[in-house]
Amino acid sequence: MHKHILLIKCKDEKGLLSKVTTLLFENDLNIIGMKEHVDELNNEFYLRCEYTGETNTIKLSETLKKMLPNNSLININPLKKKDIVIYATKEYHCLSDLLIRNYFSELNANIKCVIANHDVLKDIVEKFNIPFYLVSTENKSKAEFETEVLSITNKYQPDYIVLAKFMRILSSDFVNKFEHKIINIHHSFLPAFIGANPYRQAFERGVKLIGATAHFVTNKLDEGPIITQKTNNVDHTFTVEDMSKSGKEIERVVLAEALQYVFEDRIFVTGNKTVIFD
Amino acid sequence: MHKHILLIKCKDEKGLLSKVTTLLFENDLNIIGMKEHVDELNNEFYLRCEYTGETNTIKLSETLKKMLPNNSLININPLKKKDIVIYATKEYHCLSDLLIRNYFSELNANIKCVIANHDVLKDIVEKFNIPFYLVSTENKSKAEFETEVLSITNKYQPDYIVLAKFMRILSSDFVNKFEHKIINIHHSFLPAFIGANPYRQAFERGVKLIGATAHFVTNKLDEGPIITQKTNNVDHTFTVEDMSKSGKEIERVVLAEALQYVFEDRIFVTGNKTVIFD
Amino acid sequence: MHKHILLIKCKDEKGLLSKVTTLLFENDLNIIGMKEHVDELNNEFYLRCEYTGETNTIKLSETLKKMLPNNSLININPLKKKDIVIYATKEYHCLSDLLIRNYFSELNANIKCVIANHDVLKDIVEKFNIPFYLVSTENKSKAEFETEVLSITNKYQPDYIVLAKFMRILSSDFVNKFEHKIINIHHSFLPAFIGANPYRQAFERGVKLIGATAHFVTNKLDEGPIITQKTNNVDHTFTVEDMSKSGKEIERVVLAEALQYVFEDRIFVTGNKTVIFD
Amino acid sequence: MHKHILLIKCKDEKGLLSKVTTLLFENDLNIIGMKEHVDELNNEFYLRCEYTGETNTIKLSETLKKMLPNNSLININPLKKKDIVIYATKEYHCLSDLLIRNYFSELNANIKCVIANHDVLKDIVEKFNIPFYLVSTENKSKAEFETEVLSITNKYQPDYIVLAKFMRILSSDFVNKFEHKIINIHHSFLPAFIGANPYRQAFERGVKLIGATAHFVTNKLDEGPIITQKTNNVDHTFTVEDMSKSGKEIERVVLAEALQYVFEDRIFVTGNKTVIFD
Repeated sequence: MHKHILLIKCKDEKGLLSKVTTLLFENDLNIIGMKEHVDELNNEFYLRCEYTGETNTIKLSETLKKMLPNNSLININPLKKKDIVIYATKEYHCLSDLLIRNYFSELNANIKCVIANHDVLKDIVEKFNIPFYLVSTENKSKAEFETEVLSITNKYQPDYIVLAKFMRILSSDFVNKFEHKIINIHHSFLPAFIGANPYRQAFERGVKLIGATAHFVTNKLDEGPIITQKTNNVDHTFTVEDMSKSGKEIERVVLAEALQYVFEDRIFVTGNKTVIFD
Repeated sequence: MHKHILLIKCKDEKGLLSKVTTLLFENDLNIIGMKEHVDELNNEFYLRCEYTGETNTIKLSETLKKMLPNNSLININPLKKKDIVIYATKEYHCLSDLLIRNYFSELNANIKCVIANHDVLKDIVEKFNIPFYLVSTENKSKAEFETEVLSITNKYQPDYIVLAKFMRILSSDFVNKFEHKIINIHHSFLPAFIGANPYRQAFERGVKLIGATAHFVTNKLDEGPIITQKTNNVDHTFTVEDMSKSGKEIERVVLAEALQYVFEDRIFVTGNKTVIFD
Repeated sequence: MHKHILLIKCKDEKGLLSKVTTLLFENDLNIIGMKEHVDELNNEFYLRCEYTGETNTIKLSETLKKMLPNNSLININPLKKKDIVIYATKEYHCLSDLLIRNYFSELNANIKCVIANHDVLKDIVEKFNIPFYLVSTENKSKAEFETEVLSITNKYQPDYIVLAKFMRILSSDFVNKFEHKIINIHHSFLPAFIGANPYRQAFERGVKLIGATAHFVTNKLDEGPIITQKTNNVDHTFTVEDMSKSGKEIERVVLAEALQYVFEDRIFVTGNKTVIFD
Repeated sequence: MHKHILLIKCKDEKGLLSKVTTLLFENDLNIIGMKEHVDELNNEFYLRCEYTGETNTIKLSETLKKMLPNNSLININPLKKKDIVIYATKEYHCLSDLLIRNYFSELNANIKCVIANHDVLKDIVEKFNIPFYLVSTENKSKAEFETEVLSITNKYQPDYIVLAKFMRILSSDFVNKFEHKIINIHHSFLPAFIGANPYRQAFERGVKLIGATAHFVTNKLDEGPIITQKTNNVDHTFTVEDMSKSGKEIERVVLAEALQYVFEDRIFVTGNKTVIFD
């Protein structure tokens, strides 16, 4: 039996759970997992419901639309694999982790292609029979660079773009085309060490832990909604290089975990935060 | 407005969530938090619901009883402080943590008394104006010892008994009188190192992490339902004493966290496991 | 046999370890623990050595001074308990943890007195027969307030001052009197969320982990050398209050761990960082 | 400048550090890292020293042999890449992580070949141009199977054999040929859940954390010296499959960390424990 996902985001009001669960029950659908959250500050209601059983999805969606508050976000879909495009630069650790998970069908996504501004990662990508596009930044403006990247990306109509250690800052113009569709892995426990060289910043501050943050990209650098964060202990014996090496281990894990939430429809973006039903 | 807790455990069937949420809605009660879990293996349904609003609780409970499957466990109560009795021996770290939390009203419980088989902890307990009973094990049988302990305990009619590093093994007879009402902190990541001297066992095995486990006490030693577990890293420089010292830090934290779940009615025991709605 | 601690900080050069260990050997002293660190960037050498055996400490120190580079810091002492003064405001969790550890002789320090700008914590302090001084900030300038606090502090000639959730910012004048002698617990994973209300800042940023940082106080707010840091996971269900509650658990643990390093002479301050021999 | 590693294991006695460091100093060698450990229970001394500078290694070794206690283990070598052979079965996550690290020269080892008792992993191995040998267990005795595996292994004269989720138990005869040369990743926090199906055992016990353990293989199943262990939190919503999925993430990390210690000569086996200089 197929598993379906019902996602609802709407203004909170009394009786929402009763309405939704009763409707599913009347349609002979079987709820096998349900998570809800009420953001009391903003009076918002969030629901993720997994159910089995067959019904006319369009009709169900229309009925929900009528019974829920105006402007409700309603999304019913079979849990399907997302199409993604990955941008990278030179570092292999996040990219190759995704290539492996994709190859063994564990990513809940299809990597359609990889675009990079260096050719270091060409070989590893092509080992897995995935198209690799080199778009150099040399001798061209940022706008020209982004136009090329965009043109390739659009060919694949991706559900999401993953920045797997992509070392270029995307323009607001670019980012605005993909609202809440670009996921980045930043190598610090944000909001600490925004911007360039976070491990050097961490080294100079003498912190005792380093971290990594996966987040949606917005047009404010490193300030988009956070999905996942983890930290590792470091001490006075760590050079910048040691921190970077230790950090890569967390970056890999943090990005993989964040993408799982995104690709399994377990996440709502609300304002500049995320609601995650894990 | 008072917050009420509704707990339900019953056989799973279609439409349970719909029934319960609709009933609360019809009674003009406002659901402010809800967690449910379906144990598909055993076909069991678990629900913890926090609501505000006033209604006739007895009547609500009866209506629920009629609409839910036979033998459903239904428990509606205002979130009230639990009365507890603590048993201890000589180690102070867990006990004094509870005394402090109790003194500053952060435990969601009232410590009614402390019973110990040594007098080492008498002073610290009495600083907080809590009755301290010394019940020595000397020159008496285990049965006699337990009869004395039981007699004092019963005077206070506790909701729960907490073993805060109580170094005596309670008999099955004793334990059976308080099913799922006795919480113990064991100084290992169970099921590793059951029984005596877990830190020595850990030292001899050369593990690289030590742990602590809070669990309900059953008549099988260290095999009751687990509530909370945590581990700390250790290395080859740790003596048994170092492990014990590091372990105490986790024991304190693990017991406090477990008691929070228990005293806030966030826990169901199911078979030999726990369902925790945190 | 008494355990002695030898601390050395000096310019690095070839043969230092050979010189020091040979000298101890010739004095018939037994090295039972030794940690060294070379900061290659700054060409600094750090050593902490625990030894047993008796010798003329003054003579040993003089010999070392002659054989080591100029301006070497040499400190030989029996591992003795430090005298400390604690400053607090209203929150009990860090203070009472220290009171308990002090009472059971586990802090490697003697709490000489507690100074607070509110009287909320008077009772708990006096339960442990420790002098409590209320120094209100009302109707007086910051300079007047600090003069009073300083006057009480000086009576006790403390080795260290511990800010156990002391909610006032000390002036540079005050801080400069106690270089690397004041330890603070800050309720965020610094350098994130410097300044007031870090948990509110964390809530608004939507982070997925919160933290605590113990550090030496310098005249730059929250920018002194970091000793210990830990983080806890949080999610979208956490209110500011929940974060604060969860954070208190880490603050307590982080401060206790940091103080252990300080009170056992396991720490060097070097520039704005710490070298910790744990 | 080449970095050399000096490893010493011998009976402890006064003056060892002095002797060794003075000898290195006299040979004009520069100590850049040094870790030592004294096992007071067994009166053993362990040293790992990284130095730069050139000298006659054989002569240095002989001089050390003369000045150190009888039966000292002395090992001086340039930090070289180890040759390894990997055994696997069907699970890809640990193996492919090693293939990727090997491909990007981050493993400090050369994977000479992979031997598996199923062909599932053939494709991924051959993508990286590494010989893959299928040795089926069908229609042959355990002894015959091991003879085949041994014959292939011996062709490559590996420094170490890595069991990357190899689901067969090796005989004592086989294991004894490679004392402290075989590293296994076990999917539980040993000594909990020895033997088959640890995640099912964990599920049935209702633990709140699962783990992974990398250890040297001895002829007692899952009882060899432990190198690295980590745990992840789980809760009542985890099925056996969820535990297994979450566990794979730790297994990968634990094995990689353990192999780093082994391949960088950071580890001594002492009795049934390990001393790790990280």
